[in-house]
Amino acid sequence: MGVGPRVNMGLADLEALALKVLLAGGLAPHQAQPIARSVALTEAAGSPSHGLYRIKGYVASVRSGRVSGAAQPQLHRVASGVVRVDGQNGFAPAAHALGAPVLIEAAKAHGIAALALTNCYHFSSLWHDLTPLVDAGLTCWAFTIGQCIVAPHGGKERLMGTNPIAFGWPRGEQDPFVFDFATSAVARGEIELMGHRGESLPEGWGIDAQGQPTRDPREALAGALLPFGGHKGSALSMMVELLAGPLIGEPTSRAAARLDNGDGGPPLGGELLLAIDPAVFGLGIGHPWLEQAEVFLAEARNQPGVRLPSDRRHAALAHSQRFGVDIAQSLLDELAALAA
Amino acid sequence: MGVGPRVNMGLADLEALALKVLLAGGLAPHQAQPIARSVALTEAAGSPSHGLYRIKGYVASVRSGRVSGAAQPQLHRVASGVVRVDGQNGFAPAAHALGAPVLIEAAKAHGIAALALTNCYHFSSLWHDLTPLVDAGLTCWAFTIGQCIVAPHGGKERLMGTNPIAFGWPRGEQDPFVFDFATSAVARGEIELMGHRGESLPEGWGIDAQGQPTRDPREALAGALLPFGGHKGSALSMMVELLAGPLIGEPTSRAAARLDNGDGGPPLGGELLLAIDPAVFGLGIGHPWLEQAEVFLAEARNQPGVRLPSDRRHAALAHSQRFGVDIAQSLLDELAALAA
Repeated sequence: MGVGPRVNMGLADLEALALKVLLAGGLAPHQAQPIARSVALTEAAGSPSHGLYRIKGYVASVRSGRVSGAAQPQLHRVASGVVRVDGQNGFAPAAHALGAPVLIEAAKAHGIAALALTNCYHFSSLWHDLTPLVDAGLTCWAFTIGQCIVAPHGGKERLMGTNPIAFGWPRGEQDPFVFDFATSAVARGEIELMGHRGESLPEGWGIDAQGQPTRDPREALAGALLPFGGHKGSALSMMVELLAGPLIGEPTSRAAARLDNGDGGPPLGGELLLAIDPAVFGLGIGHPWLEQAEVFLAEARNQPGVRLPSDRRHAALAHSQRFGVDIAQSLLDELAALAA
Repeated sequence: MGVGPRVNMGLADLEALALKVLLAGGLAPHQAQPIARSVALTEAAGSPSHGLYRIKGYVASVRSGRVSGAAQPQLHRVASGVVRVDGQNGFAPAAHALGAPVLIEAAKAHGIAALALTNCYHFSSLWHDLTPLVDAGLTCWAFTIGQCIVAPHGGKERLMGTNPIAFGWPRGEQDPFVFDFATSAVARGEIELMGHRGESLPEGWGIDAQGQPTRDPREALAGALLPFGGHKGSALSMMVELLAGPLIGEPTSRAAARLDNGDGGPPLGGELLLAIDPAVFGLGIGHPWLEQAEVFLAEARNQPGVRLPSDRRHAALAHSQRFGVDIAQSLLDELAALAA
């Protein structure tokens, strides 16, 4: 983040720093711990837009009174295959920590299961939410709405969030196949960083407040971003809106935006996770799904120029675990001020 | 399809014609009927590439001995939330007809369920497979692989099918929100039609047999199509490959291509359907999900220039039901020859 001097830190120190600032900011330990782990791992995985940078927003939303930093999430089994966690107006990671083990158990018992996180605030990277599920050997998805800043294909006004989709495929002893992308042409955090760096947007990423194409990050942030992939990406964004909003009884991103107070923290919003146990299709003959998928993934990787979706993230994480992560001194100063 | 004189036909006549040709082509009634309904409705919905045009391929694959036109699909409940139908080397629509009612029952009993169609041949429009599910009030998905003709983002060789994704959202008394799109930049059938019409492809849709960009439909059909939306569409296509292939014990599109005999019929390949009962999230207070979704969809439609994904299809179907469908005489001649 930003320019200027940087400080190299190990992952454990990153997580400890994040935890310290979140606790000083008024979060209870059970709310702060899963956030600290998420932002540290995301920073280490090469996504600073969802890394330490987010801590200011978490703290601001507790200090403004909008989010409860001490909320105790409540779990409800609403059907044999469906778990709902009410975040009690706290953050999503604590709700996820309560719900994920029950989702895993339900998927193994019934072959497929769903987990809805409701009445909570989501601000972290979605791929991280899939980690316990792929580690348990499950094929899985996560959907959440983001801040309302995306116009539908053909439209000129904000209607949808950046609405990421994440998918995970377990690979036995190897790093899982995981993708996590915004259904907007680009994530909001990336646009903010491009604005800070004075960069121009590629064509087709944003429109200004009058609905006209723009390549200025600040104009696009004041207007709207566009979906990736034209009408197909727009349809996927609408799907996420329906799944993480109305389906699970949560507001759409536009309704959530009306409830925001501008404190810079995460919007109110739900998350839907799905998990399938591939073992139910194994037909008692071992793990053919695992081996067949490896043949496919090897064929993909064998083509020069082709990268699997999570290759870059896994490589960044491995590098950070060995060599640490360089954090801007200016960000560390901000965090120190927050914790003071 | 094609140029030249056209004949106006009602939907019932279209379906009866399709059924007659399929039966004459060697399909048993329980295999032929759901195919006839699918191709007639798809033709009427404005997608001739998956309409009557497909009948030749269905018949050719039975006549070549590759597909069993009399197969009796077998249903297995492999977990309380997962149903598997073995198509017994027949076509997917008969397998779907057997499995869909059980998927609906399982989703209502457990809140979420999955249906895998295996050991069968899929050649029809995916949105049609969602109709009974959305009619039963379920949120649903369908995934299937297509003929292997898509190179991954950054690659130069065929690895994946056109791998469509369909999603359905029930809307009470109104036509459902349904999308169904290839994860390739364009469906294979559309490229074939553009080739017949002598049209050029937009940039970024295809590469030739040497992996170089091409705008010639025939060169792209001999080389490879590209995914929509760059690396994001490519990741989605890989996801479909994993879900409709290895997950459910079916071949990937590339493995299926190796088993093909070039008769012009559908490839061997599976289909995965998922269904969620939104009622489990209703919390006993009616159908808030239905009303909240309508607010969102109305906000989308109120923006000038925005169309919901299924608007065009619903309009085409309504028009066809009233005014019939114009079918090329040349296609009718081909079908008459097939039935003779």
